[in-house]
Amino acid sequence: MSISVAIAGATGYAGGEILRLLLSHPAYQSGELTIGALTGASNAGARVGDIMPHVAPLADRRIEATNADTLSGHDVVFLGLPHGHSAAIAKDLGEDVAIIDCGADFRLKDAAEWEHYYDSEHAGTWTYGIPELPGNREVIKNSRRIAVPGCFPTGGTLAALPSVAKGLVEPDLSIVSITGTSGAGKKAAVPLLGSEVMGNLRAYNTAGKHRHTAEFLQNLGVYAEDLKVSFTPVLAPTSRGILTTITAPLKDASLSEEAAREVYREFYASEPFVQILAEGLQPQTQSVIGSNLVQIQVEVDQRSGRLLMTSAIDNLTKGTGGAAVQCMNLVTGLNETAGLPQVGVAP
Amino acid sequence: MSISVAIAGATGYAGGEILRLLLSHPAYQSGELTIGALTGASNAGARVGDIMPHVAPLADRRIEATNADTLSGHDVVFLGLPHGHSAAIAKDLGEDVAIIDCGADFRLKDAAEWEHYYDSEHAGTWTYGIPELPGNREVIKNSRRIAVPGCFPTGGTLAALPSVAKGLVEPDLSIVSITGTSGAGKKAAVPLLGSEVMGNLRAYNTAGKHRHTAEFLQNLGVYAEDLKVSFTPVLAPTSRGILTTITAPLKDASLSEEAAREVYREFYASEPFVQILAEGLQPQTQSVIGSNLVQIQVEVDQRSGRLLMTSAIDNLTKGTGGAAVQCMNLVTGLNETAGLPQVGVAP
Amino acid sequence: MSISVAIAGATGYAGGEILRLLLSHPAYQSGELTIGALTGASNAGARVGDIMPHVAPLADRRIEATNADTLSGHDVVFLGLPHGHSAAIAKDLGEDVAIIDCGADFRLKDAAEWEHYYDSEHAGTWTYGIPELPGNREVIKNSRRIAVPGCFPTGGTLAALPSVAKGLVEPDLSIVSITGTSGAGKKAAVPLLGSEVMGNLRAYNTAGKHRHTAEFLQNLGVYAEDLKVSFTPVLAPTSRGILTTITAPLKDASLSEEAAREVYREFYASEPFVQILAEGLQPQTQSVIGSNLVQIQVEVDQRSGRLLMTSAIDNLTKGTGGAAVQCMNLVTGLNETAGLPQVGVAP
Amino acid sequence: MSISVAIAGATGYAGGEILRLLLSHPAYQSGELTIGALTGASNAGARVGDIMPHVAPLADRRIEATNADTLSGHDVVFLGLPHGHSAAIAKDLGEDVAIIDCGADFRLKDAAEWEHYYDSEHAGTWTYGIPELPGNREVIKNSRRIAVPGCFPTGGTLAALPSVAKGLVEPDLSIVSITGTSGAGKKAAVPLLGSEVMGNLRAYNTAGKHRHTAEFLQNLGVYAEDLKVSFTPVLAPTSRGILTTITAPLKDASLSEEAAREVYREFYASEPFVQILAEGLQPQTQSVIGSNLVQIQVEVDQRSGRLLMTSAIDNLTKGTGGAAVQCMNLVTGLNETAGLPQVGVAP
Repeated sequence: MSISVAIAGATGYAGGEILRLLLSHPAYQSGELTIGALTGASNAGARVGDIMPHVAPLADRRIEATNADTLSGHDVVFLGLPHGHSAAIAKDLGEDVAIIDCGADFRLKDAAEWEHYYDSEHAGTWTYGIPELPGNREVIKNSRRIAVPGCFPTGGTLAALPSVAKGLVEPDLSIVSITGTSGAGKKAAVPLLGSEVMGNLRAYNTAGKHRHTAEFLQNLGVYAEDLKVSFTPVLAPTSRGILTTITAPLKDASLSEEAAREVYREFYASEPFVQILAEGLQPQTQSVIGSNLVQIQVEVDQRSGRLLMTSAIDNLTKGTGGAAVQCMNLVTGLNETAGLPQVGVAP
Repeated sequence: MSISVAIAGATGYAGGEILRLLLSHPAYQSGELTIGALTGASNAGARVGDIMPHVAPLADRRIEATNADTLSGHDVVFLGLPHGHSAAIAKDLGEDVAIIDCGADFRLKDAAEWEHYYDSEHAGTWTYGIPELPGNREVIKNSRRIAVPGCFPTGGTLAALPSVAKGLVEPDLSIVSITGTSGAGKKAAVPLLGSEVMGNLRAYNTAGKHRHTAEFLQNLGVYAEDLKVSFTPVLAPTSRGILTTITAPLKDASLSEEAAREVYREFYASEPFVQILAEGLQPQTQSVIGSNLVQIQVEVDQRSGRLLMTSAIDNLTKGTGGAAVQCMNLVTGLNETAGLPQVGVAP
Repeated sequence: MSISVAIAGATGYAGGEILRLLLSHPAYQSGELTIGALTGASNAGARVGDIMPHVAPLADRRIEATNADTLSGHDVVFLGLPHGHSAAIAKDLGEDVAIIDCGADFRLKDAAEWEHYYDSEHAGTWTYGIPELPGNREVIKNSRRIAVPGCFPTGGTLAALPSVAKGLVEPDLSIVSITGTSGAGKKAAVPLLGSEVMGNLRAYNTAGKHRHTAEFLQNLGVYAEDLKVSFTPVLAPTSRGILTTITAPLKDASLSEEAAREVYREFYASEPFVQILAEGLQPQTQSVIGSNLVQIQVEVDQRSGRLLMTSAIDNLTKGTGGAAVQCMNLVTGLNETAGLPQVGVAP
Repeated sequence: MSISVAIAGATGYAGGEILRLLLSHPAYQSGELTIGALTGASNAGARVGDIMPHVAPLADRRIEATNADTLSGHDVVFLGLPHGHSAAIAKDLGEDVAIIDCGADFRLKDAAEWEHYYDSEHAGTWTYGIPELPGNREVIKNSRRIAVPGCFPTGGTLAALPSVAKGLVEPDLSIVSITGTSGAGKKAAVPLLGSEVMGNLRAYNTAGKHRHTAEFLQNLGVYAEDLKVSFTPVLAPTSRGILTTITAPLKDASLSEEAAREVYREFYASEPFVQILAEGLQPQTQSVIGSNLVQIQVEVDQRSGRLLMTSAIDNLTKGTGGAAVQCMNLVTGLNETAGLPQVGVAP
């Protein structure tokens, strides 16, 4: 077998992360996987080393223009494009090509939700790229169109899922996700300058305004009618990582913490990238940086009658590029965990 | 008038912050206020410049030992001591001396709560040092024993107070406070090493275990029977600052955001250090670093039926040392705002 | 006496820092100094609170347009403008107005140097705003046109000056300055994004290319013919602060460290903002953040035959806005140290 | 072939990094390499997951005690022990076992230098673990006792080596290395607290006092009689990474930058982990985090007559754990680059 992959929008943070993972991927190292076109818009013509100096092995490669010519002829095409550009590219590439879209265009099923949050026409719905959702792994394997989820919904959905699906809590989630800055992408903007984010903590797109609210509702609403989600994202002074804390009222006030943890252990028993922490340990983003891991803890707060669910992911790995490579492994028949670190770069 | 002040436990972060504020205080610059004994335990004998190199004007001063001899003879004594040491010092100093305790010993009214959270005998209750609590300013002015509140309860109480007191929300608060590391003090411990906290986000003392839970309940429970508080502190990679986000179910689902904001504006109309932000602005810790300000925003999330209350403070200024100096100003008859910056050190 | 001041380009980092200092300035608090026009270019019309949320006391003020109309009628005008704009403004304002320029336009005496480094016509030379240079304080007092120095030359010149002026070293300086990001200003650019600077260390404008090289040569060349300066600036993941390390060959290999330190102590004996550290202490930026201090250490490295001179400043305070206010104090006859903190915001 | 490895002192930062690399190593993934005893001192008995939560795949493993019993029977033993402990362990393990020591005990050849810098008896000299030193790769392959170099000497030696060996510069180096905090290890100490290092820049062990000075002299002194090294380490607010800047007087003032760069390219032409950057690019630590790369740039500063040599490494990877694994690959006959990332975790 030989697999050739291309990356459209390769010079953004998602593209760079996919490249990082592919270059250490055993299929690349054995020659089974080849890295074809790397495309960009304003960066077309530049060398990889000028734009992504950490991608040393491909420093002299040239970025090509993003179009059907440069992208066709590959088995897998990753998309890291601004909203609204994926549909046209996908149409040109043909149905056999596996397209793995790191953008939002095809994540939502509900056109009204899309239009509410993205203020544009709904392009459609592709297979949602979280293999850990019940039954979804097989769907991904047989799909050629995959929408990689938003980074917040990945960490938050996996933290809340067993509790919501198994009915441990009332469907009224209060979610606070604290994120590094790379989730905002590689776009010049004053509020994202180092001077503005270092030494600073600030919430943004609060009170229902963040677009990922719709993904939380879509993912978890399957298991709970009338689900309510309050989502508060907070920007923190670090480049990578999302820590999500979720509380919800316990259905059974006498639920023991160990019983809750056991529900989680069973739910994710066969998941290679989900780690349910032992009592007393807290998820921390440093533990998962650069890895495809999701660390999860669940705790009972008897006094307030709430369950606390916490998770840590690297927004660029499990939250974007790692999920994309995990999906590539599934659709190409490679080992699902190949090339995806299970140890974080700590400290 | 002449006021002499001493600081017991001067070499910790609270002591250093009080010194910073006093050295720029107009009463110090005019000679009206003098800085007397600065005491420590293991640091006794050392020069201020060796232990607190930022306190340049007093670099050659010697730290003295913490005892009744060194501390007596001052009009105001600030305490920055480990738990359990304040009562003995206070007894020795006499009732006329104004004692402003940055520690926890005298914050709680309920002995059972104290024993539950601090696992030791309750020393008593002093005047609670938040002048912005209704009616509390006059109490502080006439008190000689003041307990400076915990840093989390300061930012969180002021964010939730108008909503709880005016009945905007159900008494079921989900509080997440993201804090810099200086709140943990100047004690050597592996989890607080720079290597461990930079690039990292981690919750701690979760699910009802954090001691400040009791202060939230004490402060806000006055206004709401059966108040429930879920409190999740998160450690973030910055030295100073606490961002607190609180959600609670709206009592009236049709409450407009502007009406909620107007409740806050009226509630804090005459408060010099509380700033209710205009629509569209978010509290950020960078804006309040080094200042005694509390920035607050309140928003309605109609879809989840919740009110979002957010605040930013500097944990060492309004959260500790600034509050202590504000209380000193009140008890000594100085202008309440004297020496307390109202502009943050940003960026 | 009544002093009115205006700030042109008030919404940049220099302007914000000047505002922070003025709002705590005793002359402002007593009503002697008033803050008049705050002007901007693209921000004209916006509220101060929207652009500089840390300037709480003036949150509702409007930014005006930068022109002769808005700026005239003030006693002191601070300029925080891009290169090339100061001359025209200065011409319009009249000779009586004290103009304190935080930009580079009038720093250099040598037109050829200006043209080499700034690639434009030399506008002229104003009084150089370092009061600590021998004889310069009196010149500043009698000047109405002051060029605030670059942030690197401030910290580096003061560190090297006694050694060069007193002939302790050969005139062959190897200077490395590690700086926070705020020195690059509040301009959106990908290399200054938080994601790019956090967790990162990178030199820039190396090997003679940095414009401040000319200022080093101008300031120190007075005392050493054929002075050579190698200047390497490094960007570090912090918002404020510059640590400068300088080595140069000792003229007398037997010079004792204590003798070197004594030369420094004498040189700066009457300087309120220069602190020569005791043996064993190192300058650190945290100690001077938000203050107008310069911390300096000098050490003899016998094995390599070099003298090591180190300094720490806050680039926005002593490096820009603090120096500007210090010059304002001098030209208006206020106390030189008024409103300028001598204690850093640490930790 | 089957290789079993043990790590003594596995719970420190060096041990954790070696584990991270081994767990992704192709020989581990294929079963060819097995991870045996992981030992510690105070942590003996604890689970790996409690002490190193990022090492998820071995979370339930127990740390054993460091002694001959637990360590014997392995083919390769990595040592991450405090100074002075390696000799005794090595003696017990037998001459066939490959011992790779991340500590300093056996780095220096000169007993007097050792005693001067480490104030204890010299234990001896092992093969120095930089394969990139001329001729050293073959020596390593045939050795069973390897001393992994200090992190500063690794980055600095490789940056200066071609210039010194090929006589581009006078043997008078001015070295400034800016480092993250993890180089100081995982030991609780107030100056290394997050609160003390974030927002801070500070030099330490200056003016010839840093122990790594001796390694610089040993490595580069081979090529230059009377070599002089001035070494200034600076602590920066990041966990990983060292940026080293070195200047030295040019021997030939007319040397072109391109000629200098060509010397470097030729010198390291066959080195898989050394990347000489193209003109205009600067080494940055973010580009090499988590990787075994050394990025190097060389520039001519004609005005000061100096050559500027700059390098970036990850102190825990190429500076310690990566170098250790690179040496393991060499001594065991594995592919030298196996398991060693060549792409950094950026941003």
